[in-house]
Amino acid sequence: MREIEKLLEHIITRVSINLRKPYFDVAPYVRNLVPVDSHALYYAFYALTPNHPLYFSFKHSSLAGTYFLGKCEVDHSILYKSDIRGDELKAKGSTLEFDGIKVTLYDDEIIRIKDSMLVKTLVHANSHNPESLEIFRIINTVALHYSNIHGTTMEGCLLMPFATVDLSMCHDCVFGEFSYVQAGDLSHEKIEKGRIWVRAEGAFEFNYRFPDGVVDKYISLTPGSKPKGELIDFCESRKEDFIPIYSSVIPELGVEVPESAFVSPYAVVKGNCKVGNNVLVSQRAYIESSSLGDGANAQESCYIVNSTYDGMNVTAHGGKVINAHLGRKVFTGFNSFVRGKADAKITVGKECIIMPHTIIDAVEPITIPERNLVWGYITKQADLEANSLSLDEVAKIKGQFRLGNMSFDGLGSAFVKAFQNRIEHILEVNGAYCDCDDTKGHAQETQAISYNILQPYPEGALKGLCPTVTISPLVP
Amino acid sequence: MREIEKLLEHIITRVSINLRKPYFDVAPYVRNLVPVDSHALYYAFYALTPNHPLYFSFKHSSLAGTYFLGKCEVDHSILYKSDIRGDELKAKGSTLEFDGIKVTLYDDEIIRIKDSMLVKTLVHANSHNPESLEIFRIINTVALHYSNIHGTTMEGCLLMPFATVDLSMCHDCVFGEFSYVQAGDLSHEKIEKGRIWVRAEGAFEFNYRFPDGVVDKYISLTPGSKPKGELIDFCESRKEDFIPIYSSVIPELGVEVPESAFVSPYAVVKGNCKVGNNVLVSQRAYIESSSLGDGANAQESCYIVNSTYDGMNVTAHGGKVINAHLGRKVFTGFNSFVRGKADAKITVGKECIIMPHTIIDAVEPITIPERNLVWGYITKQADLEANSLSLDEVAKIKGQFRLGNMSFDGLGSAFVKAFQNRIEHILEVNGAYCDCDDTKGHAQETQAISYNILQPYPEGALKGLCPTVTISPLVP
Repeated sequence: MREIEKLLEHIITRVSINLRKPYFDVAPYVRNLVPVDSHALYYAFYALTPNHPLYFSFKHSSLAGTYFLGKCEVDHSILYKSDIRGDELKAKGSTLEFDGIKVTLYDDEIIRIKDSMLVKTLVHANSHNPESLEIFRIINTVALHYSNIHGTTMEGCLLMPFATVDLSMCHDCVFGEFSYVQAGDLSHEKIEKGRIWVRAEGAFEFNYRFPDGVVDKYISLTPGSKPKGELIDFCESRKEDFIPIYSSVIPELGVEVPESAFVSPYAVVKGNCKVGNNVLVSQRAYIESSSLGDGANAQESCYIVNSTYDGMNVTAHGGKVINAHLGRKVFTGFNSFVRGKADAKITVGKECIIMPHTIIDAVEPITIPERNLVWGYITKQADLEANSLSLDEVAKIKGQFRLGNMSFDGLGSAFVKAFQNRIEHILEVNGAYCDCDDTKGHAQETQAISYNILQPYPEGALKGLCPTVTISPLVP
Repeated sequence: MREIEKLLEHIITRVSINLRKPYFDVAPYVRNLVPVDSHALYYAFYALTPNHPLYFSFKHSSLAGTYFLGKCEVDHSILYKSDIRGDELKAKGSTLEFDGIKVTLYDDEIIRIKDSMLVKTLVHANSHNPESLEIFRIINTVALHYSNIHGTTMEGCLLMPFATVDLSMCHDCVFGEFSYVQAGDLSHEKIEKGRIWVRAEGAFEFNYRFPDGVVDKYISLTPGSKPKGELIDFCESRKEDFIPIYSSVIPELGVEVPESAFVSPYAVVKGNCKVGNNVLVSQRAYIESSSLGDGANAQESCYIVNSTYDGMNVTAHGGKVINAHLGRKVFTGFNSFVRGKADAKITVGKECIIMPHTIIDAVEPITIPERNLVWGYITKQADLEANSLSLDEVAKIKGQFRLGNMSFDGLGSAFVKAFQNRIEHILEVNGAYCDCDDTKGHAQETQAISYNILQPYPEGALKGLCPTVTISPLVP
């Protein structure tokens, strides 16, 4: 048995101990999921900039195809084609306030991944766990294809493919395929596949469930198999375009980039594309024949194809926008699938919020009026009736409200406000509003970047695992 | 002042302290030699194989374009486009005998480079220093373009461009341009440019000096300038061919390679080339329109152009062979320049030994009979008279002997035997005789190799320096 197979069994054991309640047998989902040899094929790359505190430590782990930025420790883990983004880790000495209690960090925050397996997972660290300020931890956790661990610490969790856990703290939970959860402190919960759940304690709660059969059509995973469905097909069919990029030490960009914008050399940019000022295109984003207006951003694992963005558009991690025209400040949430066709274009009016994990898979042209909240499953114009509401109407809701498969409880105004604040925050930290030194964001801070490339043992018992590596700052 | 400039001044100070006697002002040779920004342009790469013990530690150093294999520590040093090859480091527990004294290594041998600057230098560690078995050290040393530090520990030395120090121990010495020294224990010596000096205490001594003006034509360095001359022109004019190779993470080979042979993906192979069984082509070798017969090897920084090797040919580090036909087992020594022309080909009979640092720059066809020792400066057939001797004649020498600029003292038979043994040793360790598991050499041991790529800080005060990195084996 190779060491990497032993490591996988070790991780299965650790996660299984946590997932006794709710009982979930994780083993059949992860055994044989990634062919053992694949772990030896790809390199890890860690980004080095003068603007992000630096510390890496990898021990007894496989890191194939994984990207790192910021302070990070990985131990006894398998990270496969994942993104570990620590560009929003908190700095030593920062003071935060939680429920009126002020607390100061005694050290720089660090991402610690231990006894875990992440497959094509995005980890973005702006932790919302006040109980562990210095350590952003992912422990005893399995996260599968295209899942997002976003501002969420994890212990003993399983994320099925395309699940997103956002701004939470989770302990011993299972998140079903394509579920989206932003619900604070979660313990021993099992989230059904395709559930969209946004909760702010004491303010509001949003719930949506996809109609029967819909999620399976787009993504499903049965034990012993690879994940299947139209979302997987969509991503897999574009996989080849990344190969030349990952074969270069410093890939060349196929597009003109204004000085204030940043297009990662590890993004695919093909066809005739335009990139405006203050645009951010992250690594592993895929842009084809599209125009990104000023301040737009395309985050990790998002796809923008044959589309036009008027500007200040956020496409969150894993968002997909095809044959669409998005007005100014349209927000496309995590893993949303907005797929128009050449003869069935999608037009989205300005300032619309497309909720995370929304599927708009057009069979006819669809036009969404400006300033609407959009969720759920939409294939025709008429579906908007039960899957959207103007932001003004949402803001008027007080108490319980139902529309189609969506239910809401609480203050609509707080919900809208929370979303809008967050979008503004994202635009700001990504550098969309940059006009001078004071308002720099990720688009500007990551311009001076170099990538260090770490390859695993190529043969032998340790094949696919990395040697023990520590990288720390040069202190003159 | 950037940190890398401070580091250069620090190294100058350290080397200057050593070089008080013979007094040599190293500063004007190294200041401004490499543009500061160049250190940020290139990446270091360290090779990872299952067959070579692994340990790397880099501290406060610049490593641009440098290759590493084996256990290595670098501290407060500037390594620029150099090769640090630790594939012949001794293992813990090995027992060696020196002058009848048996000594056992208590630890794996490690290369330690400290307070030194190496520019386009080859370091190959098969140390012949019995006084420091666990540490192969290069300390307070400056080595310039295309110099070779071969099996030689160094403290307080300066190697001018194309100097080679071979199988020695050196303390506070200066080696002039294109000098070659293999002379055991050296202290406070100044070796004139173009001196070829081979000495085995109590057995023989070989000396050669190039005629006036010859070395300057091929290589010269004046303070404040870059090195000049035909050797530099030759290398520089082929520099571009390496660019696509260093731009790829895993460069593709442009030649068919038999299973028993190894061609480094970081070698240039262009035109129509043939590679025989058990051939070894190292990184930074350059092969163009040439045929390498079975068991031939092309070591670091060697160039083989429009030439045919019949087999079992050694081309040592920095050897250059152009428009030539080399019979079986012809040995081409370090930095030798064997340049035929399309209408002035060079034919070398089997088992000839072309001494290190020999220049054969043909203006007419030249044919060297088999089993000859060749040295010095040759441009015409007639020059062979004073610059070669059959091995049988050499073996007959006892006592003093002179021919042209060459002088010999001692036992010719011991000299020939020593050379032949060494060639056999090189062929053996390079895997030229491989036929089964027992006789594997570098060609076979380095086949399963991955390269880790380390980039420096891209901007800011630390630009061009690397973060602190430690890589150690994964211990299951």
